[in-house]
Amino acid sequence: MQTRRSRKRIICTPIGIIHSEHRVPEETPAQPAFARDCSGRVEVFPEYAEGLKDLEGFSHLILLYHFHKAADTKLTVKPCLVDMPKGVFATRHPSRPNHIGLSIVRLTSVEGATLHIEDVDILDGSPLLDIKPYVPQFDQVADARRGWTASVPEEVSRQRGRRGYRPKKPE
Amino acid sequence: MQTRRSRKRIICTPIGIIHSEHRVPEETPAQPAFARDCSGRVEVFPEYAEGLKDLEGFSHLILLYHFHKAADTKLTVKPCLVDMPKGVFATRHPSRPNHIGLSIVRLTSVEGATLHIEDVDILDGSPLLDIKPYVPQFDQVADARRGWTASVPEEVSRQRGRRGYRPKKPE
Repeated sequence: MQTRRSRKRIICTPIGIIHSEHRVPEETPAQPAFARDCSGRVEVFPEYAEGLKDLEGFSHLILLYHFHKAADTKLTVKPCLVDMPKGVFATRHPSRPNHIGLSIVRLTSVEGATLHIEDVDILDGSPLLDIKPYVPQFDQVADARRGWTASVPEEVSRQRGRRGYRPKKPE
Repeated sequence: MQTRRSRKRIICTPIGIIHSEHRVPEETPAQPAFARDCSGRVEVFPEYAEGLKDLEGFSHLILLYHFHKAADTKLTVKPCLVDMPKGVFATRHPSRPNHIGLSIVRLTSVEGATLHIEDVDILDGSPLLDIKPYVPQFDQVADARRGWTASVPEEVSRQRGRRGYRPKKPE
């Protein structure tokens, strides 16, 4: 009974849109760690603006959003860092059930219902589902074991994680 | 145009259920940091089991789940750590738009499609939406500023964050 109830579908409504310079999935950095020079902004819909109060004291935010360009769901994927297939839940690949993305971005300023952010690895136009403050006491895990990612040399990880991204030349 | 498209509702399907000893929201620790002695397990539905491959090398998982007992949505909430109201996006309070919860739990073992976990601050029966590996390189932010939570003394935070939870006596 519980199982049946727990399989009930859950309907989410976007609370805003994420804007970035990333328009091509294949050229979008795979993680904020690989997107240090990428800026963006979060446009929170006006009816949710009240919820942004007290946010400006935090330097980092956890954004949950919809991988809106990920049409398919696969249980085995090839992550961008290695050429070996992995179980999707052992990766951050977009082709996952429910297509929910998570990025920890840097908050530089709040201007009304607009959040200016840095380290943005998110496709332009991604529907925003939630904003949570990054709280070191909750979100920093000391000595976490990093599974298969430990076998990827740092330089390889940096190159592949950045994907096809090239910073735009100033105009 | 983009705004209208981005407001399209997103339908999520639970991929499993989280089991824990927490049955009363008011007595459930507010974060894994306050739930060090609480065990639980994640039952992943069989059709998603393939996606768990390669997960056992990670010591910690990010679970996304539905706050299924949070009936209401509020933009200003009273977090459990302080008596002052805060904007909901500056907190981890369940009464948030879309009711998506995030917990970083410790993975102790994988047994078929069951994940045994520790540091569980999640209500029993919560529908699971996603599992992501906790990757220190991606998820550890050095020197993050922690906003209003910095003004809560550690001991107060520990006491209040634990909420009404009392470990069960061995039977």
